[in-house]
Amino acid sequence: MALGEFELIERILRRPQDARRDRVVLGGGDDCALLQVHAGEQWAVSTDTLVEGRHFLSTVDPVALGHKALAVNLSDLAACGAQPRACTLNLTLPRADESWLRAFAQGFFALADAHGIVLAGGDTTGGPLNIAVTAMGTVPAGEALLRSGAVAGDDLWVSHPREGGLGIGDARLALEVFRGRTGLPQGGLEAVRERMEWPQPRVALGLAMRGLAHAAIDLSDGLIGDLGHVLKASGVGAQLWWAALPRSHWLALQTPALQRDCLLAGGDDYELLISAPASCRHQLPDHAAQCGLALSRIGQVVQGSGIRVFDDEAACAAGAPAWPSERLPHSFDHFRDGSDSGSGSGSGSGGRMGGQGSP
Amino acid sequence: MALGEFELIERILRRPQDARRDRVVLGGGDDCALLQVHAGEQWAVSTDTLVEGRHFLSTVDPVALGHKALAVNLSDLAACGAQPRACTLNLTLPRADESWLRAFAQGFFALADAHGIVLAGGDTTGGPLNIAVTAMGTVPAGEALLRSGAVAGDDLWVSHPREGGLGIGDARLALEVFRGRTGLPQGGLEAVRERMEWPQPRVALGLAMRGLAHAAIDLSDGLIGDLGHVLKASGVGAQLWWAALPRSHWLALQTPALQRDCLLAGGDDYELLISAPASCRHQLPDHAAQCGLALSRIGQVVQGSGIRVFDDEAACAAGAPAWPSERLPHSFDHFRDGSDSGSGSGSGSGGRMGGQGSP
Repeated sequence: MALGEFELIERILRRPQDARRDRVVLGGGDDCALLQVHAGEQWAVSTDTLVEGRHFLSTVDPVALGHKALAVNLSDLAACGAQPRACTLNLTLPRADESWLRAFAQGFFALADAHGIVLAGGDTTGGPLNIAVTAMGTVPAGEALLRSGAVAGDDLWVSHPREGGLGIGDARLALEVFRGRTGLPQGGLEAVRERMEWPQPRVALGLAMRGLAHAAIDLSDGLIGDLGHVLKASGVGAQLWWAALPRSHWLALQTPALQRDCLLAGGDDYELLISAPASCRHQLPDHAAQCGLALSRIGQVVQGSGIRVFDDEAACAAGAPAWPSERLPHSFDHFRDGSDSGSGSGSGSGGRMGGQGSP
Repeated sequence: MALGEFELIERILRRPQDARRDRVVLGGGDDCALLQVHAGEQWAVSTDTLVEGRHFLSTVDPVALGHKALAVNLSDLAACGAQPRACTLNLTLPRADESWLRAFAQGFFALADAHGIVLAGGDTTGGPLNIAVTAMGTVPAGEALLRSGAVAGDDLWVSHPREGGLGIGDARLALEVFRGRTGLPQGGLEAVRERMEWPQPRVALGLAMRGLAHAAIDLSDGLIGDLGHVLKASGVGAQLWWAALPRSHWLALQTPALQRDCLLAGGDDYELLISAPASCRHQLPDHAAQCGLALSRIGQVVQGSGIRVFDDEAACAAGAPAWPSERLPHSFDHFRDGSDSGSGSGSGSGGRMGGQGSP
C-alpha cells in the first residue's frame, strides 16, 4: 500500500516518546487521548473537524449539522467508556447567517444537553465553512476501553438500534443514493438519511462496557477499517460472519456488491464495535437493552493478524474458505480519494492522528 | 454601536444558565472557560482558530505559524494563571505538503516542549487552510486570574520584554509596514515582525501572578479593547497614562496617530495586562524579572466605567483633561472590517464567545 498523504501527516505529527509524554497515558491513535492529571482519573480528549463539501453536503440541514459535529466527538468518548464533561466549538463561517446559526446551535445544544455537557469555550471567525469540535470527558484510571485490549477468543459485537430493523451501513447507503448509485422505495431514503445525518453517540453503552469489554472502537471509517485498527493495536486477527452483520430492510434490498460496500466499509455509523470475552456473551445484550440498543455478535477475535470474512459462523466452524480479499472493500483516504467529497463521511475517516492504520 | 455580527453569534451561542452549567465555574467570556471537575482543581480551556488571509499572510513562515497557533492559546491560559497541560490540533489543509507540514510541526512542538505540554489529539482533513487549537490547563480552585476581579485603586500593568527596548504595539506596527502605511529603517522590520509572528505566551508570569493580581487578560484585541473587557467584567473604569505605555524605538519614530493605533488598539501583542493592588507595587516588577520580563505600570483602575487616557500620571493627578474619545481608536471586528484580512491579528480579535465586549 502506497504511503497515503494522511500517513505522511501522521508520521510528522506523531512524535517519538519523550520526557514530556509521561503524563499521556495514551496519545493520538486510540479513539481518545488519555491524560493522567490526577491519580485515579484520566481525561479523555477527542477532536474532529467537519469541512463543507467533504464531510457534509452544503444542503445539509444545519440542525443536523450542529448535532453531528458534536456527535462524532461524543462517539469517540463513548468508545473509550468516558463520561463526557465539556466541549469546545471552533466555527469558521463565510458569513453570520442568523437563521443558519440558530439552527446549528439548536442541534448542537440539544445533543449537549442530552448528555449533560457544557460548551466550555469557542472561537468564531470568518472564512470557508469549517467546524472543529473538541470533546473532553473523564474515566477512572485504568478503566478506559482501548483499542489494544482485544484477545483471541473474544466475541466481536456491534451495536445498533433496537427499533426499526436498523443495522450498520445505512449512512453509506444514504450517501450512495445521493450519489445516484442506487435508489430506494418510499420511506427508505428518509430512514437511511436519518442514520447518516443524525448519528447517535453510544455514550451509555460505552459506560456500561467498562469492566466487561476488552476493547472498543466507534465505527467511523467502516467495519473493516475500524476493526483493523483494533486488531493492529491488539496484535490479533479476526473472523467476521457476513450473515450476522445487522442490516436494515433497505440495505438488504441492495445488490451484494453494494451491501458489502455499506456493511464492510460504510463508515459514519457511529455504532460501537466491541471485543468482549465469551464469558460475557449472555450479559452484553442485556446491558445494551438497558441503553435502548441491540448488540449483534458478528465474529470472533483469533490469533494471528488480518480479517477473514465467512458467510456465517457455521460455515466458519465447518472449515469453509474465507472470502477472497478482493471481495473486501477498502476504506478511503480524504486526500487520495476525491469521491467522498460531499459525503456524510465522518471526520474519523482519514485524519485522526495515529488512527489511520491499513486494514 | 450597531450590533456586530460577532455579537449576534455570541448571543446565539451563549446560553442562559441552566442546570447543566453548574459544573462550569466560568463559561466563555473570560480568557479561558473554567471547569470544576474535581474539588480543589479546575480545568482551564481555551480554543482559537487561525484562517489564512485573515489571521496570517499566506507567505508566513510555517515554523512561525505553528508556533503562533499554539502561542495564542497558551497566552489565554497564562492570562488565567493556569498551568498548561495538553492541547489538540485540528488542521485543515488544501494539500499535504511535506516540507510545509514539517516546518509547521517544528514551530508547534518547539513551543509545546518549552511549556512541557503534550499534543493530546488532533484531526487532519482536506479543505481551505484552517488551524484550530484547543489548549487545556489546570489551576487550583479559586486561584484563577479572572477578568472580573479588578477593583478601584488597582494599578494597571502591562508586561513586555526586558531586552531590546520592546513594548506593546509592535505587532500592529509590523502589519502597518506590510500594508504600506509606514516604513522602517534598517533592522526595524525584522524586530517588529518577530513580535507579530513569534508571540511569547507569558505563562510563567501568569503563574507568578496567582494570589497577587486581582485580574488579568492577554492583549490580543489591543489595549483599549482588552482593558475594556476587564473593566466591563469588573464593573469599574480606568485611567491610562499615555507616556507610560512601553513602546519600542521603532514605534516611537512613528506619527502620533500611528502610535495611538499601535499602542491603544494594536492587538496581537500577547502580553499580559494585569490589575493588582497598589500594595504589590514593589513586588510585581521583581516577579516579572524572574520570568525574564518587565512590567510597566500604565494606569489605574477607578470607580465608574470607561477608559480615560491622560498624557501622563502627573497630568492626571494635576487634573488635566483626559483625551477626547475621538482620539481613541476602536478595535475591529473580523466580519465587519475586511481591512484586517491578511493581518497578523490574533484570533482573539473578534470571535471569542463572550469576549467581544465594546470598549
